[in-house]
Amino acid sequence: MTSTLTLPTAQAWQGLIHAYRSYLPVSETTPIITLHEGNTPLIPVPRIAAAIGRGVKVYVKYDGLNPTGSFKDRGMTMAISKAKEAGAKAVICASTGNTSAAAAAYARRGGLRAYVLIPEGYVAQGKLAQALLYGAEVLAIQGNFDRALEIVREMAETYPITLVNSVNPYRLEGQKTAAFEVVDALGDAPDWLCIPMGNAGNITAYWMGFCQYHEQNKGTRLPRMMGFQAAGSAPLVTGEICQHPETIATAIRIGNPANWQRALAVRAASQGDFQAVTDSEILVAYRMLAGEEGIFCEPASAASVAGLLKNQAQIPSGATIVCVLTGNGLKDPDTALQQETTQFHRNVVPELANVAEIMGF
Amino acid sequence: MTSTLTLPTAQAWQGLIHAYRSYLPVSETTPIITLHEGNTPLIPVPRIAAAIGRGVKVYVKYDGLNPTGSFKDRGMTMAISKAKEAGAKAVICASTGNTSAAAAAYARRGGLRAYVLIPEGYVAQGKLAQALLYGAEVLAIQGNFDRALEIVREMAETYPITLVNSVNPYRLEGQKTAAFEVVDALGDAPDWLCIPMGNAGNITAYWMGFCQYHEQNKGTRLPRMMGFQAAGSAPLVTGEICQHPETIATAIRIGNPANWQRALAVRAASQGDFQAVTDSEILVAYRMLAGEEGIFCEPASAASVAGLLKNQAQIPSGATIVCVLTGNGLKDPDTALQQETTQFHRNVVPELANVAEIMGF
Repeated sequence: MTSTLTLPTAQAWQGLIHAYRSYLPVSETTPIITLHEGNTPLIPVPRIAAAIGRGVKVYVKYDGLNPTGSFKDRGMTMAISKAKEAGAKAVICASTGNTSAAAAAYARRGGLRAYVLIPEGYVAQGKLAQALLYGAEVLAIQGNFDRALEIVREMAETYPITLVNSVNPYRLEGQKTAAFEVVDALGDAPDWLCIPMGNAGNITAYWMGFCQYHEQNKGTRLPRMMGFQAAGSAPLVTGEICQHPETIATAIRIGNPANWQRALAVRAASQGDFQAVTDSEILVAYRMLAGEEGIFCEPASAASVAGLLKNQAQIPSGATIVCVLTGNGLKDPDTALQQETTQFHRNVVPELANVAEIMGF
Repeated sequence: MTSTLTLPTAQAWQGLIHAYRSYLPVSETTPIITLHEGNTPLIPVPRIAAAIGRGVKVYVKYDGLNPTGSFKDRGMTMAISKAKEAGAKAVICASTGNTSAAAAAYARRGGLRAYVLIPEGYVAQGKLAQALLYGAEVLAIQGNFDRALEIVREMAETYPITLVNSVNPYRLEGQKTAAFEVVDALGDAPDWLCIPMGNAGNITAYWMGFCQYHEQNKGTRLPRMMGFQAAGSAPLVTGEICQHPETIATAIRIGNPANWQRALAVRAASQGDFQAVTDSEILVAYRMLAGEEGIFCEPASAASVAGLLKNQAQIPSGATIVCVLTGNGLKDPDTALQQETTQFHRNVVPELANVAEIMGF
């Protein structure tokens, strides 16, 4: 087992394909389209750990610090590199926002055109801003993510355009590297991995990564995979397609996950569990992460911590737990600004005495 | 000279104080308040390099991938750690937005209260969202950044509260590590460093870092320091305080830089230059970075690339150039959404034929 607990200077990171090439389906001739994604911090969250107690150690894998602000970059560096290798000129995806930003950025970096279908009115502002500025053609459809995914699948079957949703197998290959990074940082796999589930690609990819590293004797154990969905959009918990998914966690507002069967297999193999968390539980975790730990994630990401807090009683004493934070809070400034607060003082007269009084001095 | 050009697994990065402890004013007993900041990617921008030609190599130091989305985290891990060591209970700063986000996040992580003064109406939405969600007390004053800085200086002199603006010397100590990272990644200092200037703390800090590393024989040369200001807010170019700074680049909308004299000394010592770039030049660079390189920065950051493009004729053939991108584009989604575009199609009827037609198939 390799341990790499201290590294004085890590600035030469050149992206996850470069770092984990031997684990990925690339050859010497594959053109590598990279924004130096991956290598995101694994940050201890001591106050959340203290709320659980009993010597439990909790970390967050802050994948919102990828180049376009979400874990989607891990899959997209692979998907776009392979599309480029195959001679593609254009790519397409359906998206709740994060995939579209990543697809647009990597496609343009690789010199390809990008088309993205998003559900009208349900994509956070930052994500829409990204897709447009990166230069994607954006179609906001009168329908939800699931309908958008149906259409882009048909488009890719009918026209010369490569599908880069997580049904593209290279996406999960790239995403599995997050599990490698967790094991590399901790020196072993955690006891539990808590992760939000929308299309259920990421939980599938993490499990692939943990298993592959384990087979190489990197790490002595495999984690329990704890997947969390928003209560208003929880098909993997209820066992039924959700026709009208609704949640503040727009990144996981998906009623018919493409990776449904694979996710069930992960749950079984890992002795894991799938549960729902309510929007209000998600927002409690979201505010706790920012206000107590200094970490700003998007609402969907906070589902992993909300789920952890809901399962306090079941956590073994002394366990090591990693919660995956899939996206940057800056993706969705509106949700942050909508939180109730008495901290914001507007139109303040700029004089010392006045400022001191407002501050309570 | 140490070269660290490949690192297979870099996930154990524990923040810049941990990595560069021997270069920083901390002791074994300093409490380290960290979000694992630093270690941001140095990304080649081949299309911008090709626009210049003559074998010039251009990289961007994408400091928008720090935990709160800007380079301010580098200084704040130091300032808050030292404030905590000194027994402070509260910190204060004036900010155009990025400093307030960083101060709030690190203060809360360290268990301190944070107060921030911002200019009413001139802080990008994402930054305000961050400061509030991280739990800072935010006062939006009827006045600009310069007036806010005057008031917080008085507050820190009068009340038991620690000032964490860049006049706090620990801020620049932390920020200088970005220069270390550039040298570590390239194996030497670049020929030119292009950098946006607002309060002029960062150019001062980079120069400190380059000089300190050079004295330790890490790198064979020192770069020319090329500082760029927005034309509507360019006191370091005009030589006069700008009473009413105006620019779309709100992060550098500062008319009376606190580090004025130090910046002039850097220019002289490095044989550098200070120039102004217009808002429209900034926006051209901003769109080019996103649409051609896949890198989304905030408008102020793009001033470094705008400045580079303006100086094409002066760049030595074969030179290596680093442009500093100080903040994440997600900090300011409004500016991105305000860019003219024909790429956005709303209210699309979700049927294959219709989608194909819009896409031009």
